[in-house]
Amino acid sequence: MDLKIAVLPGDGIGPEISEQGVAVMNAVCEKFGHHASYQYALCGAEAIDKVGDPFPEETFKVCMDADAVLFSAVGDPKFDNDPTAKVRPEQGLLAMRKKLGLFANIRPVETFDCLIHKSPLKDELVRGADFICIRELTGGMYFGEKYQDDDKAYDTNAYTRPEIERILRVAYEYAMRRRKHLTVVDKANVLASSRLWRQVAKEMAPQYPEVETDYMFVDNAAMRMIQDPRFFDVMVTENTFGDILTDEGSCITGSMGLLPSASTGEHTPVFEPIHGSWPQAKGQNIANPLAQILSVAMLFEYFDLKDEGALIRKAVNASLDANVRTPEIQVEGGERYGTTEVGQWIVDYIKKA
Amino acid sequence: MDLKIAVLPGDGIGPEISEQGVAVMNAVCEKFGHHASYQYALCGAEAIDKVGDPFPEETFKVCMDADAVLFSAVGDPKFDNDPTAKVRPEQGLLAMRKKLGLFANIRPVETFDCLIHKSPLKDELVRGADFICIRELTGGMYFGEKYQDDDKAYDTNAYTRPEIERILRVAYEYAMRRRKHLTVVDKANVLASSRLWRQVAKEMAPQYPEVETDYMFVDNAAMRMIQDPRFFDVMVTENTFGDILTDEGSCITGSMGLLPSASTGEHTPVFEPIHGSWPQAKGQNIANPLAQILSVAMLFEYFDLKDEGALIRKAVNASLDANVRTPEIQVEGGERYGTTEVGQWIVDYIKKA
Ligand SMILES: CC(C)[C@H](C(=O)O)[C@@H](O)C(=O)O
Ligand SMILES: CC(C)[C@H](C(=O)O)[C@@H](O)C(=O)O
Repeated sequence: MDLKIAVLPGDGIGPEISEQGVAVMNAVCEKFGHHASYQYALCGAEAIDKVGDPFPEETFKVCMDADAVLFSAVGDPKFDNDPTAKVRPEQGLLAMRKKLGLFANIRPVETFDCLIHKSPLKDELVRGADFICIRELTGGMYFGEKYQDDDKAYDTNAYTRPEIERILRVAYEYAMRRRKHLTVVDKANVLASSRLWRQVAKEMAPQYPEVETDYMFVDNAAMRMIQDPRFFDVMVTENTFGDILTDEGSCITGSMGLLPSASTGEHTPVFEPIHGSWPQAKGQNIANPLAQILSVAMLFEYFDLKDEGALIRKAVNASLDANVRTPEIQVEGGERYGTTEVGQWIVDYIKKA
Repeated sequence: MDLKIAVLPGDGIGPEISEQGVAVMNAVCEKFGHHASYQYALCGAEAIDKVGDPFPEETFKVCMDADAVLFSAVGDPKFDNDPTAKVRPEQGLLAMRKKLGLFANIRPVETFDCLIHKSPLKDELVRGADFICIRELTGGMYFGEKYQDDDKAYDTNAYTRPEIERILRVAYEYAMRRRKHLTVVDKANVLASSRLWRQVAKEMAPQYPEVETDYMFVDNAAMRMIQDPRFFDVMVTENTFGDILTDEGSCITGSMGLLPSASTGEHTPVFEPIHGSWPQAKGQNIANPLAQILSVAMLFEYFDLKDEGALIRKAVNASLDANVRTPEIQVEGGERYGTTEVGQWIVDYIKKA
């Protein structure tokens, strides 16, 4: 297969982990007889500095022209502390989502046995937890009408039926390929938008008779995720609730630095780690490249290249078992491996496989 | 002191725990030479059944006429499963909040050493956690303009400067009486309403130079609460975020059945357990009355009757230490105590104190 990849390294540790993602992608392509070509493009703080726009038109074109986007991370503290800054790196992220029509954000929450001791939850609760959070990514308060002056402000949480239908469709399809249990999270006892979500879900559920659908209020979901994370298989929710719940979900396993995500929709899909740009670590060769590398696995799987994805996952697990780990997850007394060494070990493993 | 109390027992286990709350209140009043008089009023499902309104005008009057409301719980599953139901018990709750102007919901998150093993979090993370969540309760999407038809729906998340100022004021006052650390939770990188919250907070912070104020995005707060709950002292946030975060907070300590809350504002303050009406347990004498009893402690403390509150807390801790506990928190092989027995034990303790 020929794959045209747009590479958006972004800020902070982005370029370092991006490099390892590309190296792993190349190794897999070589192994399986695929061919990948790469187009690099600016985004985030770097793009603001260079061209004054966190998601420049040129970057958008490169993305539209590609089969997939390999994204790393954006964000720079200099913008957080500058109240006069008119453009911020995060706006690039939002622009990318909107312009590429990335309405479905897919975040697997997985445990890694060797890292489970890092979980804030008790071992017996979290061991074996394995679910997918699906967050609607281009609607709701993020993109609804807004107003702000010195005395009042508002945001609008708006959804249309087609917006709800298409994300529920994605969720049902994931549920069908997994344990056939879908939890629709909303606040239908208070919000009109949630009542429409629930209505659409209730209409759609009979089309998936094999899937057990349940409905849960968001406050309850925030508790359940901690008290009984194994309850969930696939969870779907609107943009703002999804922002909160996916982050909560990502920290319960102790493997936050290892979790990838996919955002798919109308145009080119984007694959990225869930962690941020960690500016303090930039250039130090200490950032964990595994979330980025696993986002390459998700990329292959998106194109139905299952063996390719599986090999990457196998290599990642092998690296963990061999204690080839970056400092934040290294065992006591373990050897020091940097970003590049972990990446190289995985590339070698794939070559030898 | 003379106290006029409106008692709203509500649904499910509400009446049973209400009875124990009143008994404890009487014991404390007797001990300290206060006098409490009680006016009972309908709310929730019971009020719908009897007068067709979950927060009847008569109940509102009783509340307005009282110094404090002792509330128990509302909710009945028959309404959840009836899509044709036009009025629901929860609407009574929302009406009560709005009509009494209860803009500040105060939820202490406390650990009890003897229950910490029930926490889903690791002992070493959660032990000693002790913070207060302050949730704005009469604004935001709960009460903003709404619309819904078959094809689209929206809610409006609106806040005015005075609404934000008064809740931040409450939060700063709690922070001043505690460890002087306030965390303002918002989503100012995306929402206009959050940007106004942050602006108002930044303007108010210099008036409390002793308090360390920090600003945290809601997604980050949802993680931090699990990863490092001891970080927090006082947290303040808007209505919808507060709904999610207070519930998350309430389950991290393993003592959910023990946590009380206060809602204060323009008119009569309301004191209630954070747990629900647990309809399945109704009439079985198994519900834990401690959250209701501790809400009586919060009631006394609200009127600056600190010793009264402290004695209730001491009695509750003594009951736990003596294993006088309802079934869900009883130690293995421990004796069986019902709702009334636990309440009676605490009343006796207070009398003998
Ligand atoms: C940076 C921010 C705008 C973004 C969001 O809220 O969507 C982030 O938190 C995320 O979850 O990807
Ligand atoms: C029952 C519901 C309307 C209510 C809310 O969302 O405020 C409840 O969840 C709460 O937190 O008190």
